[in-house]
Amino acid sequence: MHNKIEDEIKDIVNSILEDYETDRTIDTIELFDQPDTEVVADITKKLLNIVYPGYYRDKSYRFYNDDSRLTVIIEDVIFNLTKQISIVLRQLPENASLNQTEIEQRAKQMSLEFFKQIPKIREYTETDVLATFDGDPAAFNKNEIILCYPGLYAITINRLAHEMFQIGIPIIPRMMTEQAHSKTGIDIHPGATLGKYFFIDHGTGIVVGETTIIGDYVKVYQGVTIGALSTRGGQRLKGVKRHPTIEDHVTIYAGASILGGETVIGRGAVIGSNAFITKSVEPGVTVSIKNQQLDMKSKYDYIEASELNPEENWFYTI
Amino acid sequence: MHNKIEDEIKDIVNSILEDYETDRTIDTIELFDQPDTEVVADITKKLLNIVYPGYYRDKSYRFYNDDSRLTVIIEDVIFNLTKQISIVLRQLPENASLNQTEIEQRAKQMSLEFFKQIPKIREYTETDVLATFDGDPAAFNKNEIILCYPGLYAITINRLAHEMFQIGIPIIPRMMTEQAHSKTGIDIHPGATLGKYFFIDHGTGIVVGETTIIGDYVKVYQGVTIGALSTRGGQRLKGVKRHPTIEDHVTIYAGASILGGETVIGRGAVIGSNAFITKSVEPGVTVSIKNQQLDMKSKYDYIEASELNPEENWFYTI
Amino acid sequence: MHNKIEDEIKDIVNSILEDYETDRTIDTIELFDQPDTEVVADITKKLLNIVYPGYYRDKSYRFYNDDSRLTVIIEDVIFNLTKQISIVLRQLPENASLNQTEIEQRAKQMSLEFFKQIPKIREYTETDVLATFDGDPAAFNKNEIILCYPGLYAITINRLAHEMFQIGIPIIPRMMTEQAHSKTGIDIHPGATLGKYFFIDHGTGIVVGETTIIGDYVKVYQGVTIGALSTRGGQRLKGVKRHPTIEDHVTIYAGASILGGETVIGRGAVIGSNAFITKSVEPGVTVSIKNQQLDMKSKYDYIEASELNPEENWFYTI
Repeated sequence: MHNKIEDEIKDIVNSILEDYETDRTIDTIELFDQPDTEVVADITKKLLNIVYPGYYRDKSYRFYNDDSRLTVIIEDVIFNLTKQISIVLRQLPENASLNQTEIEQRAKQMSLEFFKQIPKIREYTETDVLATFDGDPAAFNKNEIILCYPGLYAITINRLAHEMFQIGIPIIPRMMTEQAHSKTGIDIHPGATLGKYFFIDHGTGIVVGETTIIGDYVKVYQGVTIGALSTRGGQRLKGVKRHPTIEDHVTIYAGASILGGETVIGRGAVIGSNAFITKSVEPGVTVSIKNQQLDMKSKYDYIEASELNPEENWFYTI
Repeated sequence: MHNKIEDEIKDIVNSILEDYETDRTIDTIELFDQPDTEVVADITKKLLNIVYPGYYRDKSYRFYNDDSRLTVIIEDVIFNLTKQISIVLRQLPENASLNQTEIEQRAKQMSLEFFKQIPKIREYTETDVLATFDGDPAAFNKNEIILCYPGLYAITINRLAHEMFQIGIPIIPRMMTEQAHSKTGIDIHPGATLGKYFFIDHGTGIVVGETTIIGDYVKVYQGVTIGALSTRGGQRLKGVKRHPTIEDHVTIYAGASILGGETVIGRGAVIGSNAFITKSVEPGVTVSIKNQQLDMKSKYDYIEASELNPEENWFYTI
Repeated sequence: MHNKIEDEIKDIVNSILEDYETDRTIDTIELFDQPDTEVVADITKKLLNIVYPGYYRDKSYRFYNDDSRLTVIIEDVIFNLTKQISIVLRQLPENASLNQTEIEQRAKQMSLEFFKQIPKIREYTETDVLATFDGDPAAFNKNEIILCYPGLYAITINRLAHEMFQIGIPIIPRMMTEQAHSKTGIDIHPGATLGKYFFIDHGTGIVVGETTIIGDYVKVYQGVTIGALSTRGGQRLKGVKRHPTIEDHVTIYAGASILGGETVIGRGAVIGSNAFITKSVEPGVTVSIKNQQLDMKSKYDYIEASELNPEENWFYTI
């Protein structure tokens, strides 16, 4: 039995190449036909630079003249965004009859249309900064919020991605929100509509579904799900409103779940921690779980804490 | 008192160097004797390139010939993986009697053995893509799933890491799954065994323990723990089955916890949101929390929402 | 209607430039006046290198002489940290009367003061490594813990950031803990005080608030909140103790919430999964939710699992 490493590698390569020769989804080998996650991440970074001109600087653009700086960045983003949109438009069955020039023309129009929304996005973003500063006693100042707060970051990315989603740009906005999800633990689908003065604190574990509508002055804490009641229908539910509507001035505390496309949380309502809501809540109502039944075992059932030798036994007692 | 900055730094350096001179775990200074997290991340990226040849392209390998491209990537990964495995094998007390050549020979065999599992891993991965597309009405198409979905990403990394774990490669598979955990918020131990058609939606906060066994067609949502009932025994529990068995066609909704090594969730069972399960569930049974006792305070106890001046008072009401 | 791309871009640039001309927070354009997230990330990485000299190596410092290596790294970190601290000190209204030299002098003193805490930080970190190894039966060895465990990573970053916070360095420590939050899903405010032998398992979704005090030998699992009871007071609550005190030898299982500045969890207490605690718990007491009322629907209400044709119908049943 010969066992030379080159032969073994050759056998492995052949077995994998053979494995590519089927017609499965993952056997697609069109190397230059997929949007590029790194390019999309770079586009996102430059869009943040445009939204917060004093904060997300790109070292390669050190112009003191804002006009030139902006023109350079925007042309760069439009060029790259148009290219990425073209790639995804070309994949769609309904575009099969379009030639490359037509696809690029459509992609360019989508990019420009998106950029016209920037002032509106900035208007909303300013309100998010104010809501965050007001909502968190631990916030040192507004700079800290823009530089550090994952909630504000995820909301800003959603506002950008949502405008792309509305214009009909496929896949790219979801790539952007998933990159924000990876960074923050906050998963807001680009389809979700967010009102002004939106505040997310801590954020990890928050899920906001595709057809959610959120009003103004809403506060959401970590671990909250605003989701579908059931997705057993799978792809047949596509396009149906499956996620709740949250009206103005609602607060949703940590770990609460609000589910269902017909569920409406009325103006000014407060949803307590861990509440599980599948029906509408009237305006102004505060919902909390009735005193959780807690079982307290007396300390006499346990080793007296004061008898412990922490150095030797601590792992028995914790 | 002289207070020159150089003197102060010298004092600081000396006090830290002195602090290294004890025999604690963190005083280990063997600079080139640890596996390299960046190399492991690079190996993972190239393995994804091999599993999904059309999606995770590496710009440094722009070959149009798949045979050459694959051979180059696979040789690169085998070289680096063998090196990393050698580093960790050398640390193990049971390998103290082996010389460097013997260690490298063993590491190389482990790498090759791992690569032989790639077609099997790809077979399972294809089923995960199908399950994800089917399970999520918000999925635009299968490209979006492969490019964006954190659940599929974490599952694929687990399938790769699990094969390494089975072959007996130490530490490296855990480094891979922790990198996926960092990126996705999904913590699946490389020891966990996953069936076909596994679907994770949203994912943040999911924990799947080392000795978990999961069947086919299982769906898991965000915040689910499949864990140990208690780990008070610490290292003495090593190797014991401490985590549940989930049979085929089970769905586990958001926030549910299923705990214990003897807990079996039977075929086709559905575990509702936030359910806390420490005993086995019969096949086909749907478990949900009995209507949560919610306390609704009437809106008349609160400021009438309509009386609010949102510009001035909104933070009092949310 | 002329519609040349250059004109459209010019219009877009002008509309965005106009949008910058207001006095909102996000219109601040002081490109070189913000702390730099990448520099702070680099400082963090080098501090980890100093805390764990054998693990986080920086390829640009390959000295075999620890004295030279340390001196080079520490001088580098002091230089960069001093610069970043200067930037944030200059922003503070109370420093308006200081000139640049005075600010830099203060920043340098803060950097040096911080470095004097390194041996203490390392003393505590060693105990965290031991606690983690002891607490997790899945831990292969201590190397795996230092290389892979997100809990240990987040705790170490907190210990570094907490010392900076105590010295009065603004914003930078929060940038450090938010970078750890992004990587691990664990959000520990730099103001929180952590005792020795602190163990976090899995970690995703953990929130520990600014004024929390945690004793020695404490274990915390994923999804735990140690938070404020309410933050409706917003900025008016700044500086108030809003978060609990956790005494020695306490264990807090997954998903539990402990809230309020007057809440004290006594020595040796055990808080069960998902418990919601807003009042103090006596030492040695075990708190668990009374048996959750679960609703089990018999399998006869459902399609018999054994009748399923998995290939065609599986998505109906899960």
